[in-house]
Amino acid sequence: MSQRFVVIGGQAAGMSAASQARRRDPKADVVVFEGSEEVSYLACGLPYYLGGVVQNEDDLIVVSKDTFVNNRNIDVRTGHFVESIDVAARRLRVVDRKSGAASDEAFDTLCISTGATATPLAVPGQTLDGVFTLHTLGDARRIQQYIETNKVRTAVIVGAGYIGLEMAENLRRRGIGVAIVERLDSVMSGVGWDIGQPVARALAANSVRLMLDTEIDAFDGDTRVRVCRTRSEDLDADLVIIATGIKPNSGIAIEAGLASGAAGAISVDDHQETSISGIYAAGDCADSLNLVTGKKNYLALGTIANKQGRVAGANAVGGDETFLGVVGTRIVRVFDVEVARAGLTLADAKEHGYRAASKTIKSYSRANYYPQGGQVMVKIIFDTSDGRLLGAEVVGPEGVKGRIDVFVAALTHKMTVGQFSDLDLAYAPPFSPVWDPVLVASNVAKRGLRPRRSSKD
Amino acid sequence: MSQRFVVIGGQAAGMSAASQARRRDPKADVVVFEGSEEVSYLACGLPYYLGGVVQNEDDLIVVSKDTFVNNRNIDVRTGHFVESIDVAARRLRVVDRKSGAASDEAFDTLCISTGATATPLAVPGQTLDGVFTLHTLGDARRIQQYIETNKVRTAVIVGAGYIGLEMAENLRRRGIGVAIVERLDSVMSGVGWDIGQPVARALAANSVRLMLDTEIDAFDGDTRVRVCRTRSEDLDADLVIIATGIKPNSGIAIEAGLASGAAGAISVDDHQETSISGIYAAGDCADSLNLVTGKKNYLALGTIANKQGRVAGANAVGGDETFLGVVGTRIVRVFDVEVARAGLTLADAKEHGYRAASKTIKSYSRANYYPQGGQVMVKIIFDTSDGRLLGAEVVGPEGVKGRIDVFVAALTHKMTVGQFSDLDLAYAPPFSPVWDPVLVASNVAKRGLRPRRSSKD
Repeated sequence: MSQRFVVIGGQAAGMSAASQARRRDPKADVVVFEGSEEVSYLACGLPYYLGGVVQNEDDLIVVSKDTFVNNRNIDVRTGHFVESIDVAARRLRVVDRKSGAASDEAFDTLCISTGATATPLAVPGQTLDGVFTLHTLGDARRIQQYIETNKVRTAVIVGAGYIGLEMAENLRRRGIGVAIVERLDSVMSGVGWDIGQPVARALAANSVRLMLDTEIDAFDGDTRVRVCRTRSEDLDADLVIIATGIKPNSGIAIEAGLASGAAGAISVDDHQETSISGIYAAGDCADSLNLVTGKKNYLALGTIANKQGRVAGANAVGGDETFLGVVGTRIVRVFDVEVARAGLTLADAKEHGYRAASKTIKSYSRANYYPQGGQVMVKIIFDTSDGRLLGAEVVGPEGVKGRIDVFVAALTHKMTVGQFSDLDLAYAPPFSPVWDPVLVASNVAKRGLRPRRSSKD
Repeated sequence: MSQRFVVIGGQAAGMSAASQARRRDPKADVVVFEGSEEVSYLACGLPYYLGGVVQNEDDLIVVSKDTFVNNRNIDVRTGHFVESIDVAARRLRVVDRKSGAASDEAFDTLCISTGATATPLAVPGQTLDGVFTLHTLGDARRIQQYIETNKVRTAVIVGAGYIGLEMAENLRRRGIGVAIVERLDSVMSGVGWDIGQPVARALAANSVRLMLDTEIDAFDGDTRVRVCRTRSEDLDADLVIIATGIKPNSGIAIEAGLASGAAGAISVDDHQETSISGIYAAGDCADSLNLVTGKKNYLALGTIANKQGRVAGANAVGGDETFLGVVGTRIVRVFDVEVARAGLTLADAKEHGYRAASKTIKSYSRANYYPQGGQVMVKIIFDTSDGRLLGAEVVGPEGVKGRIDVFVAALTHKMTVGQFSDLDLAYAPPFSPVWDPVLVASNVAKRGLRPRRSSKD
């Protein structure tokens, strides 16, 4: 008899797992239970959907349910919610949302891809109408509807991470006044103050108010939110988007006895296998290995979910694939500024016990005589004891993805700043100065490591 | 007494060596002999100077001679040509071009950075007026003058490498009709036919005729060139730019008894030291280690010259720096297409004895729902016996530098396609699809490696 591979959750990780399993084992019985009505949509596009950049909801669907069912022979059951996992009996308790009927479903191997939930803010008024989190297509539809039916003129975005910044740009596209309130004193979960400056300037230039180091006391209004009260002042808010982070949907896994890992996510090994043999986890509900620290961490991003899902799906049908880990890469474009980070921030690095230092340099995105382009800043975080790269941050008008991606490869392979400086990076006048900004930064960091030869050196 | 470090040649490598030596050893006597009147100009900007993108010649000067002399205390002697090196006596024979006077100059350590010379084409008519190579600022001035004083309406560019392609774009900017004649059947010294297609289309769309696989028989005219005769037909040519390659200026070094290396360049070790202790070589006159093949090769590029120069200069004054090597990265923007390669082409790889295969994929430069962007093609060349990456080629409307640079880091660290697929590359909708095109390519290559499980796998 062919084996039965069951997947809980039909988004990035789950559908990657199901597709990979099908590709590897044409005879396996592959079943996906998804609580909502949608599978495999591009959650990262939701801010652009709300900004009208993506006009059609269908453009967010990677592969339709019909294609999975008819072309890939995957049994996708939307509207089916998994209530519990019986690890010993290899069974799930599944509830059909429409009929309310519950049934038991057997599995030989399992992939848990239950995703994550946006964390609400524990302040008074957070249940008022008009206060939203943005994590699912359902959330986006509700926000869309709210903006359309209420005359939303002002919005407060809580959190200056990538979702907060993307939402600021997209709400401005609709002419809505925007303030971002962030608890930390920096954007993008901790980039250096220097790297944050061009982001702050771009926000200001586009009439977005950025309030760093600011706590929210309450939201206020009648039934609908009207005001966001912070320590320092009250802000008009017809709409509030809370984008302060997410937490893994690991509840049913933990209840079933699976080991929990970083930040309460499901602990997985390099095969995406959980503490129970034959049960895999992938995506926003699972933890991952940080390749810089060598320790487990929790990072919920679509790219990671896709990679983990493939590995889980392959291994669930007898494959032997591994997922190396992550370096914590994040990027966002906000108006005309691109900003990214990878690896550890300086504060992270010190907290992890490294003898960490940082260097920030300013350079240009193109040869200085080549038209357009503009200033690029690169911050390198490195270990002063052995020169090892620990992290990098890049901001500029263009080319930021490529520059952070070189650091990603370097961090993955534990390069020193010296090795980095030798990289034979591509150069032509439209693309960079002859010394690419990332090489200038590593040269400066390297110089800081060299034993000094004289007082004037 | 302080030591005397002498540098032959005042361009990228030579001035990097001099500056680095000065920075490391404030007391050293640092002298540079440069045959021309210019030091340290950006040779890579010359096509853009001819296209009028760079309006002012001064914009091509990185650091002026005055700054080197007055601020960095480097004794720069322009118009001084080094005729010979006496290795045993540690002396140079130097000729002052203006006066014709020759003198002997002692050195403790030496850096040879004599650069390279554009190779002429051995065909009849190559000495006609209007037939140029483009390698130095002097060449660019002569071409500029020729275009201005003669009514240049048509040009033939010989060679479809990056200089040929950049010149095509820049001559079109001036309204000159352009044909490129290339001996090989591909652009960029051998990118795959598939990767070359978008380049060919961009050239055609901008009325540049691209003639691949075409040999030139002769140039014809009275005193000035008028016609370029190829096997198949005669082309109008008021101007001819020969951009078929360069050869190292290693003559005085070889005559002095230094070992020659790849392609007749000066052989250097990882400290940029030649076969004679205390004598270094850097830049277009020296060879380098190819990190993919582990063998010496000859690649003359400004970025490599700068890196080698720094290492040579540091070591000449007692430092202990190394230059890892190169992976053969090249990039060019031609009209609205960016194309790059790194590592080995498929043909190169087979010639070097690898069990090489390649995969080419098509994807997009941004998320499919995000405006603008366009088709990206990625070709991966890999070893089918162990999955090791051997080379990569990327073409597209944007983001090509960043994508090839990730391959550069991967090739440098000898990653397999499997390791590459795990890279935690930056993702957000304005920058790439959730699976970056380079990861799609490595996934496809990886799939080709996997032992097949069934006939339908």
